[in-house]
Amino acid sequence: MSHKFILVFAFFGLNVTSFGQINNTYNLMPVPAKLSTNNNQVEINAGFSIAIRGKADPRIFLEASRFVRRLSNKTGIFLDKIGYVTQKDSNRSATLLIHILRPGKLVLGEDESYSIETKSEQVLVSANTDLGAIHALETLLQLISNDERGYYFPGVSIQDEPRFAWRGLLLDVALHFMPVDVVKRTLDGMAATKMNVLHLHLCNDQGFRVESKIFPRLQQVSSDGIYYSQEDIKNIIKYADQRGIRIVPEFVVPAHTTAILKAYPEFASVKRDYKLQRYFGVFDPVMDPTNEKLYPFLQRLYTEMASLFPDQYMHIGGDENTGKDWENTPHIKAFMKAHGMKKYMDLQTYFNQRLLPIIQKTGKTMMGWDEILQPGVPKEIVIQSWRGNDAYYSSIKQGYRAILSYGYYIDLIQPASYHYQNDPIPDSAHLTEKEKKLVLGGEATMWSELITPTTVDSRIWPRTAAIAERLWSPKEIKDTDDMYRRLDIASLHLEALGLHHISYKLPMMRQLTNGMDTKPLEILVSVIEPLKIYERNEGDTMYTVFSPYTKLADVASPDQAVPRIFKKQVDQFLNDSSKELEEEITKKLILWKENNIPFQQIVRNSPILNEASILSENLSLLATAGLDALQYLHDQKKPDADWLKKQMEIIARAKQQGGRCETQVVDAVQKLIEKAVAK
Amino acid sequence: MSHKFILVFAFFGLNVTSFGQINNTYNLMPVPAKLSTNNNQVEINAGFSIAIRGKADPRIFLEASRFVRRLSNKTGIFLDKIGYVTQKDSNRSATLLIHILRPGKLVLGEDESYSIETKSEQVLVSANTDLGAIHALETLLQLISNDERGYYFPGVSIQDEPRFAWRGLLLDVALHFMPVDVVKRTLDGMAATKMNVLHLHLCNDQGFRVESKIFPRLQQVSSDGIYYSQEDIKNIIKYADQRGIRIVPEFVVPAHTTAILKAYPEFASVKRDYKLQRYFGVFDPVMDPTNEKLYPFLQRLYTEMASLFPDQYMHIGGDENTGKDWENTPHIKAFMKAHGMKKYMDLQTYFNQRLLPIIQKTGKTMMGWDEILQPGVPKEIVIQSWRGNDAYYSSIKQGYRAILSYGYYIDLIQPASYHYQNDPIPDSAHLTEKEKKLVLGGEATMWSELITPTTVDSRIWPRTAAIAERLWSPKEIKDTDDMYRRLDIASLHLEALGLHHISYKLPMMRQLTNGMDTKPLEILVSVIEPLKIYERNEGDTMYTVFSPYTKLADVASPDQAVPRIFKKQVDQFLNDSSKELEEEITKKLILWKENNIPFQQIVRNSPILNEASILSENLSLLATAGLDALQYLHDQKKPDADWLKKQMEIIARAKQQGGRCETQVVDAVQKLIEKAVAK
Repeated sequence: MSHKFILVFAFFGLNVTSFGQINNTYNLMPVPAKLSTNNNQVEINAGFSIAIRGKADPRIFLEASRFVRRLSNKTGIFLDKIGYVTQKDSNRSATLLIHILRPGKLVLGEDESYSIETKSEQVLVSANTDLGAIHALETLLQLISNDERGYYFPGVSIQDEPRFAWRGLLLDVALHFMPVDVVKRTLDGMAATKMNVLHLHLCNDQGFRVESKIFPRLQQVSSDGIYYSQEDIKNIIKYADQRGIRIVPEFVVPAHTTAILKAYPEFASVKRDYKLQRYFGVFDPVMDPTNEKLYPFLQRLYTEMASLFPDQYMHIGGDENTGKDWENTPHIKAFMKAHGMKKYMDLQTYFNQRLLPIIQKTGKTMMGWDEILQPGVPKEIVIQSWRGNDAYYSSIKQGYRAILSYGYYIDLIQPASYHYQNDPIPDSAHLTEKEKKLVLGGEATMWSELITPTTVDSRIWPRTAAIAERLWSPKEIKDTDDMYRRLDIASLHLEALGLHHISYKLPMMRQLTNGMDTKPLEILVSVIEPLKIYERNEGDTMYTVFSPYTKLADVASPDQAVPRIFKKQVDQFLNDSSKELEEEITKKLILWKENNIPFQQIVRNSPILNEASILSENLSLLATAGLDALQYLHDQKKPDADWLKKQMEIIARAKQQGGRCETQVVDAVQKLIEKAVAK
Repeated sequence: MSHKFILVFAFFGLNVTSFGQINNTYNLMPVPAKLSTNNNQVEINAGFSIAIRGKADPRIFLEASRFVRRLSNKTGIFLDKIGYVTQKDSNRSATLLIHILRPGKLVLGEDESYSIETKSEQVLVSANTDLGAIHALETLLQLISNDERGYYFPGVSIQDEPRFAWRGLLLDVALHFMPVDVVKRTLDGMAATKMNVLHLHLCNDQGFRVESKIFPRLQQVSSDGIYYSQEDIKNIIKYADQRGIRIVPEFVVPAHTTAILKAYPEFASVKRDYKLQRYFGVFDPVMDPTNEKLYPFLQRLYTEMASLFPDQYMHIGGDENTGKDWENTPHIKAFMKAHGMKKYMDLQTYFNQRLLPIIQKTGKTMMGWDEILQPGVPKEIVIQSWRGNDAYYSSIKQGYRAILSYGYYIDLIQPASYHYQNDPIPDSAHLTEKEKKLVLGGEATMWSELITPTTVDSRIWPRTAAIAERLWSPKEIKDTDDMYRRLDIASLHLEALGLHHISYKLPMMRQLTNGMDTKPLEILVSVIEPLKIYERNEGDTMYTVFSPYTKLADVASPDQAVPRIFKKQVDQFLNDSSKELEEEITKKLILWKENNIPFQQIVRNSPILNEASILSENLSLLATAGLDALQYLHDQKKPDADWLKKQMEIIARAKQQGGRCETQVVDAVQKLIEKAVAK
């Protein structure tokens, strides 16, 4: 009998009350708050039925119908008798019986808890709201198990609820636009990982991406024709609502407003011929807070958008104002002087104080980036923290509610492990219980400078599932190895939803190799990653919105498994050498060494890969150095100083970038070399 | 120096005036009407520029901008200086200079000709209309060549124009709905293959897929919430217009109208509790032509839709009326008797005669399937022929304009070669020159009973590119081998546009193998195809709209290359055995023979693949039989009758279906066996 879900008994710290001493995580991601197992099994066959009882929002019927299709698609079992689940489906002996107490409201802090109980012939789900039940359905899909004969729900007893109420993803659709279908599949992935806020970054210097009926020049003049209609937005909101996800819109002011100022230049601080910004970065254009006509404009714009987006929160951005256009403009300087403002940030505080009642009048709660937190801002606003822990702790200590994004910048190509260990309430912060309550949660941020609809999934997934777990699961769930084990499974689960984070690579590679065999490119790409943090777009001058994002750094993706495992094997080998490990390491080094010849053949037939040539060559040399080192270790001979010098040159070369990517196995090989010398 | 585009000198018949005796097709698909080569080359580098002169529709600027991005994406060259091409880009010395005489009208028969001329440092495009220029841009993208140093446009002189004015694809969005992004990428593929009509089949028994503002119950009650808003339709039309593609809508009446009758049961012939049909096939529900209120309803509906869709043609379906609901209804029977109608088709003719002025009043030209051609129908209507050549020739002989779809039913899983040889004006038809002019062209039909947005691309592409060539290129271009050679290249070219016909397989296989290595499944899938014609959905009762389309028959796709090449190799070997061929055939047979053990390991871990087990087992036995036969042939020994009997049993078993698929290499192995016995 072969089980898909091998039971893993992992210890997650012994002092956790919400866990037993032994926790069986199955392959769930995020891990539930409490889980125990029993010996029941509920077979999944063509007689499967589902029933929903109690009072619920209609969304649960749509989600239950979607659940049935996904169950059928995964198992191949024809469940055609169940088309759309309706209120008529209320049979108490249904295979899956869901009981819901009351309709869930899609607001911050709503009850999202649920329980699952496998009985002998039935799976019972209970939830206070349909939002909890929706999470239960996602857990059930992850629980589906099989033996040779068929599929079943395993025997579990789960009581689950989120640790944080705000589990968000920011999707930047301004710098590079993301079509509705990208947003929809992103929402599917979020629902599968129990995230509940999609924060849409809807305008910036590069474009204004929502239709305004009051100020149509915003989309007509300032979007290159690439924007969401109001109908699109309504569809996105509806799609998200069904999945229990709030949509929080961001309309950034007063800086990052080149697009708005192109359409309505009368609100600019400096008169210029405004054009949509094609580069990425921080620019001087900013609204003129001294222009009294600005505020009625903002009032009408935010009021229109407030009525389009039903969520309680309105994000006003507020970040990255250079202040130059204020300080260089006489009438603004004079205004500042007249009002006793010393720094340009004082003027921004003034602007925010004028904006706040406008937002309040729409019935919304204002939120913004760190920068909006200035003395005198009322406590009701929410701060999204991006500039580091000091700013974050400071806002909490001052009594503001905060959302952590620092450490969740998934555009910076850092590994899932880094984000996973970034706790919104770290012990080191020494927050009081009261302060802890001000931590609403966190948000991964998918800034889209260097991504397109083709590559975006690979930048979001699967890493964001690890962040989702950080925000949902108990703090004590933090074993990185177990996270990566489950992340591999979650990744395939996300792929079944139609996400392209795995599958985008081969089509792109087939183009890059000009139709030749992609294998040598696959081998190279498996050990490289795009340059991290802000290095890829050096000086913010290499890329624009028009650049080709079809090259090596685009097909390369973050957090590669091959180097991660290789590093681990090398560490283990250096700690306690075994023949198996030596063979395993040798095999990989030979693969990388020999890959260069076929790779260069491809390059000769595909100039777009010229930039990758140096990486392949250096990888080959690096692997050769690693093999030499292994040989010395194997023979227990010590190389001479000259050898070491040569190898260190190879190491230095292997650290060089190529095609805005870098090799991820250099350090591990360096360790082998250093060990060989140290022996 | 390595060239991507290896020059292929193929003879396409010596009596063709539009071709030289030697034709260089490069890798173009469709092959242009006239092509010759010269020694010029125009380098593609960061200095590339583009200019458009003359009078043109604005669509060409959008298409030229898209061309620049595609050129940049393909070559990796940063062409950031060119954002959007505008009328200001008119420099006579631009790298690519396009001259257009007049704005193209997107109507049947508009001039779509163009020429391309590579000069020493410039590529010149001339076209009478921007529609021709759009085709030229697609040809240029297919022409991009490279050597080790970089990319260039090769030296060509092309004069091109289509053979037929109507080069269509029917996309059925009624049986299974296709979201807007699927339609858009389909349009991209059509533009790349110079097709110019997307025929949307918008309603049927399973649903009504367009928002009606006049009769909103159509989408509210009869679409399961899955339909295009009018804004969606406008977006699709705009997207298509930019690519020079007409959108022809089909609203089928009087049969196939369960969805309409569910919303408006007062127009049904029989009073029933109408529900959306979940099965596929031919059903009895039909409108009541004797109900005088029906015609104002149709007038208002068609008038609304006529104003939504700007094309000149309105397709009214008209097919597959069983007549039962008419013949079994007394008042309809009485009406027929009173009007001297003998068969139910007489009543349908009456209905069509009532409908025609309604369509005419909207300013449109009526078209429909074969069935609408009844005595007395005016000559202005267009017949879409699906029931075979007799009906097709008959409509032409009667003086009706016709579009051929019989032979282009791509849902029937036949190979590209079959469709490719299906000429709209076959010599055997003996049409007069005047009759030939009545042949407007053809349409591939993508009926969506058994497809989903995930699999649809694999059913359309790349085979439809072969149909596109049949409808565009000179009749004499009909070499199947050269078609397949170019189709492989076209397939990658289509993939670069974002089509999923290749890439959908691995994600689906990763689900099917439950995360295990997909290789054994890939090997099996490469030699099987879904059951053809109407066999897969036996008796129209196996599948519904709710069935899982994530199984073996969905990951399997039409026209597999491996069996095609294998058959060819076997034929060649049997004709003139060579050691190389024997080795090649042996290698494949061993691969298939040995695949069964790892395949069964996967099946044991993934019950969804149980249905594939028999195919893998039989393939292994078949391959063993083939290897035995080869051995006999090799040893020049003759097997006994008993051996033959056993092998024929194996052959018989290998012909059995599994998972609604069949193995494609049985006949070739059978030939080896028969040869072994005949020796």
